[in-house]
Amino acid sequence: MTTIAARLVARLAELGIEHLFGVPADYNLDFLDRVYASELAFVGTCNELGAAYAADGYARLRGAGALLTTFGVGELAAINGIGGSYAESVPVVEIVGAPSTRAAHAGLPMHHTMADGDFGRFERMHVEVTCDRVTLTAANAAAEMDRVLRACLHHKRPVRIALPCDLVDHPAPVPEEPLLAEACPPPEPPIEAFRARATALLAHASRPAVLADHLAERHGARGALADLVAAGPLPVAALNMGKGVVDESAPTFAGMYIGANSAPGTRATVEDADCLITVGVLITDANSGGFTHRFPADRTIEVAPHASRIGDTEYPGLPMTAALAVLTDIVAGGEYDAPPRLPVRVRPAFAPDEPLTQAALWDRFAAYVRPGDVVVAEQGTSFFGVIDTRMPAGVTVVGQVLWSSIGYTLPAALGTCVAAPDRRTLLAIGDGSFQLTAQELGTIARVGAAPVILVVNNGGYTIERAIHPTDAPYNDVAPWRYADLPAAFGAEHARTTRVTTPAELDIALEAADRDRDHLVLIEAVVAPEDYPGRLAAIAAKYRPAPTPAASERAPAAGAGTSSTLTA
Amino acid sequence: MTTIAARLVARLAELGIEHLFGVPADYNLDFLDRVYASELAFVGTCNELGAAYAADGYARLRGAGALLTTFGVGELAAINGIGGSYAESVPVVEIVGAPSTRAAHAGLPMHHTMADGDFGRFERMHVEVTCDRVTLTAANAAAEMDRVLRACLHHKRPVRIALPCDLVDHPAPVPEEPLLAEACPPPEPPIEAFRARATALLAHASRPAVLADHLAERHGARGALADLVAAGPLPVAALNMGKGVVDESAPTFAGMYIGANSAPGTRATVEDADCLITVGVLITDANSGGFTHRFPADRTIEVAPHASRIGDTEYPGLPMTAALAVLTDIVAGGEYDAPPRLPVRVRPAFAPDEPLTQAALWDRFAAYVRPGDVVVAEQGTSFFGVIDTRMPAGVTVVGQVLWSSIGYTLPAALGTCVAAPDRRTLLAIGDGSFQLTAQELGTIARVGAAPVILVVNNGGYTIERAIHPTDAPYNDVAPWRYADLPAAFGAEHARTTRVTTPAELDIALEAADRDRDHLVLIEAVVAPEDYPGRLAAIAAKYRPAPTPAASERAPAAGAGTSSTLTA
Repeated sequence: MTTIAARLVARLAELGIEHLFGVPADYNLDFLDRVYASELAFVGTCNELGAAYAADGYARLRGAGALLTTFGVGELAAINGIGGSYAESVPVVEIVGAPSTRAAHAGLPMHHTMADGDFGRFERMHVEVTCDRVTLTAANAAAEMDRVLRACLHHKRPVRIALPCDLVDHPAPVPEEPLLAEACPPPEPPIEAFRARATALLAHASRPAVLADHLAERHGARGALADLVAAGPLPVAALNMGKGVVDESAPTFAGMYIGANSAPGTRATVEDADCLITVGVLITDANSGGFTHRFPADRTIEVAPHASRIGDTEYPGLPMTAALAVLTDIVAGGEYDAPPRLPVRVRPAFAPDEPLTQAALWDRFAAYVRPGDVVVAEQGTSFFGVIDTRMPAGVTVVGQVLWSSIGYTLPAALGTCVAAPDRRTLLAIGDGSFQLTAQELGTIARVGAAPVILVVNNGGYTIERAIHPTDAPYNDVAPWRYADLPAAFGAEHARTTRVTTPAELDIALEAADRDRDHLVLIEAVVAPEDYPGRLAAIAAKYRPAPTPAASERAPAAGAGTSSTLTA
Repeated sequence: MTTIAARLVARLAELGIEHLFGVPADYNLDFLDRVYASELAFVGTCNELGAAYAADGYARLRGAGALLTTFGVGELAAINGIGGSYAESVPVVEIVGAPSTRAAHAGLPMHHTMADGDFGRFERMHVEVTCDRVTLTAANAAAEMDRVLRACLHHKRPVRIALPCDLVDHPAPVPEEPLLAEACPPPEPPIEAFRARATALLAHASRPAVLADHLAERHGARGALADLVAAGPLPVAALNMGKGVVDESAPTFAGMYIGANSAPGTRATVEDADCLITVGVLITDANSGGFTHRFPADRTIEVAPHASRIGDTEYPGLPMTAALAVLTDIVAGGEYDAPPRLPVRVRPAFAPDEPLTQAALWDRFAAYVRPGDVVVAEQGTSFFGVIDTRMPAGVTVVGQVLWSSIGYTLPAALGTCVAAPDRRTLLAIGDGSFQLTAQELGTIARVGAAPVILVVNNGGYTIERAIHPTDAPYNDVAPWRYADLPAAFGAEHARTTRVTTPAELDIALEAADRDRDHLVLIEAVVAPEDYPGRLAAIAAKYRPAPTPAASERAPAAGAGTSSTLTA
């Protein structure tokens, strides 16, 4: 026998989770003591939303992440981060320290509750943002924690495990089999039918193309996707949420596909393909140019995590990697046109001593990214600046295109730094977003991480300025002294600079390169209404109310199919 | 006719709401434009949790508060604050800018959703933390906003109003009657039966006493409560959540009642009363010394917001103020023992140049509070330090005893500063709590508020250290330079000091008194394991799992009755 706490910690280790983000609080202190006695390292964050975002960033690199909160107050403070993990298919395990079983059974009016005896409220709220959840009991703990953790891995979505504080040391059986062993084998997927239909479709294709998105990365199909692309070779475009999923340095890269907002060549590659293979695609307003995407409905092979579809025929139960292996086989025997080359990037003209512009900023940023970097880009102007950066090989891009909760990336960068200390994390974040979660800069410093943080100071929420021009000052934020913050937050190994010209930016970036042991914060000052290249065009489509014309143009099969298969 | 947005803003004005806290985001920008065209002032906070806490603090002084968020990400970031308002009975109106009616009806995969066509998730989550809620439609907007706002006022609990962005300027009828007019008069309450039973009980009493809690304040009965106490005069004790509800400077004040953790005289006054009148009481673990409270069950008159109870008889529909008026009539005709005098506060011994202790800190704080101040005390060691401060007349105390979400008070102090600019806000907060929501210090500075902020720097979560001693370092927080933060957050009118002795603290407090136009932040350094007087004793009872002995001692009628009547 072991204990419930020890068993849970051991199961997290099986998932590759070596760090637990969170905030101590009385209902979770007993569990924390057991964590400190284990190999699992606790990373205390300033608040629970920071912990949730950090666990999400960690999971994107490690395949799973975890956070520890307390009943009610802690888990509700974190729940927006959990919602983001749900929307963006990130497997995060939330362990909630809960009141004792006795207090819950007696319905006592405990602190962190509504004092009305209802201990089920917060679990019910999590129905909407987790793929599974459980409150452990003495009787069910082992089987239920396994069930919920397996759901997390299968769906790549967050789960909530509530651990009453009196059960921490309760006996629990040692696992008889690894968590990752399937309890029973899935039914034989319709793989031969899929192969036959795909072969027939590809036999007539001379210009097939691949469109990749984030679910390929989440479901462990990055390698299988690369094999498919190389087998052609086939041109491969990516959606915004899938930025970094394919090797953008290879000649097969066809650019970022954003519906009508795509570069002309990219749009033609995708929309004029005579067979389009979509891999892990989820269409949203923000990644489709306001639903202006057009897929060749009768010539599209849609590969989703646990099913594929060709035309109206669904092939349920087909794992993504298996479907990709079938397609790679077929494509390897075919002959196709050579992928078109993307045009060489046209560098914007700017003088080194002129005031810094967004154009110059992202030009310098593009030149700065190295193979293997982790690029974390806030879903404001920063993501739009990064999206057109053609990434070197092996770069992971972390952003939040669908959930778009500003403030996500600073704690997410804490997560990526902890998850991959040997890789360089580059964070690009606007000042407005930075203010939401700024305190986790202190946590980044405290764990000794050394990211390069680019704070784009344009005095407010410039993405809102772009999509909703106004004279009212609500998009302006308080004028912080960003370069003074690391020291105030206790960072002793920080280097900070404030830059206002391209030349100053270059000097700061070069200094950061020489100084890899230090947390580097570069405050880059740009004008409030200066937007990255494509934002102005995209902004019009990004408005909350899609115009009827835009909705009608959206091919129903595109959006509808994706959500069906990825649900 | 008017518009939906204009009608909603006008209804908020009827509630005395002159300020709207929140964060701009694309689904609420159209509404925000209408707010800027109105008398309602928008106060942009750094994040939505800050807005929720600020609206809560504002509502505690003004009787109602409001915040503006955006669909999904914004409202989930705020929801822990809404949960706190629910638990602590604070009427807060949350307006959520939502995707267009058209997008929702079509189930489009919009950003800030799960991209699965389900637009009802976040409203469903709010079932657990609001007393009512609605998504406005073109057809129902006027009637539904009125219904929901009336529920907010009646229950003194938060509500959620989702406003789709395409309905902002949709026509709506001008209100025909004030919001506060009751739609139909309530049924005649059983007031004479209550009077008869209360008269009989009080006729045999020589030592009646009053026990007051926060629901008296929330339901507008502060004056009626004072009248009852004066009519005796009767001794009146208060529960922690009701700190400041009664005039503590009057000779009738009997101290803070915390079950077995009360001062002996206070405990005797309450538990040995031959008739105990409880007013707006809610028993929880944290305010009852771990359920060690003992009320004389057959001699207790329980006055709740919308009902009273004597023994086993409930008097439903009886408003709190009406019940108090009846009791005041009865008591005015009685003759009772004079209320016992509380012992004079024994000042702790300390030398001015010794290292600062919690004992010295709260002694100096007690001497510093003035009539009419707003004292905001974080539910950590700070609240325990403040709880034994006998407050001057007219002081409002803001804390969060039941919900106990650390980090609440800094944004709540923003709310109190905005709500009552002519009163002095004194905030006492520990360093661990401060780190959760520190950025709203920038917002406090930005609105030009001038509170006195006492940051108790003991290197971490000392309340957790008290209730769960450990050698593990999880209760330690990053060593920030608190006195440097106001400048880094852009505060140009801040005065900051770091004090380590009682003499330095006195100098800093005196300087703050002379300098009433400046935001004052005093970082007071104390030892990590130095606790305010009563915390050590209370901590044992505060542990998450009440011992069986403690539960059995708790009179079932006490806890159960309160929750029934206040639900």
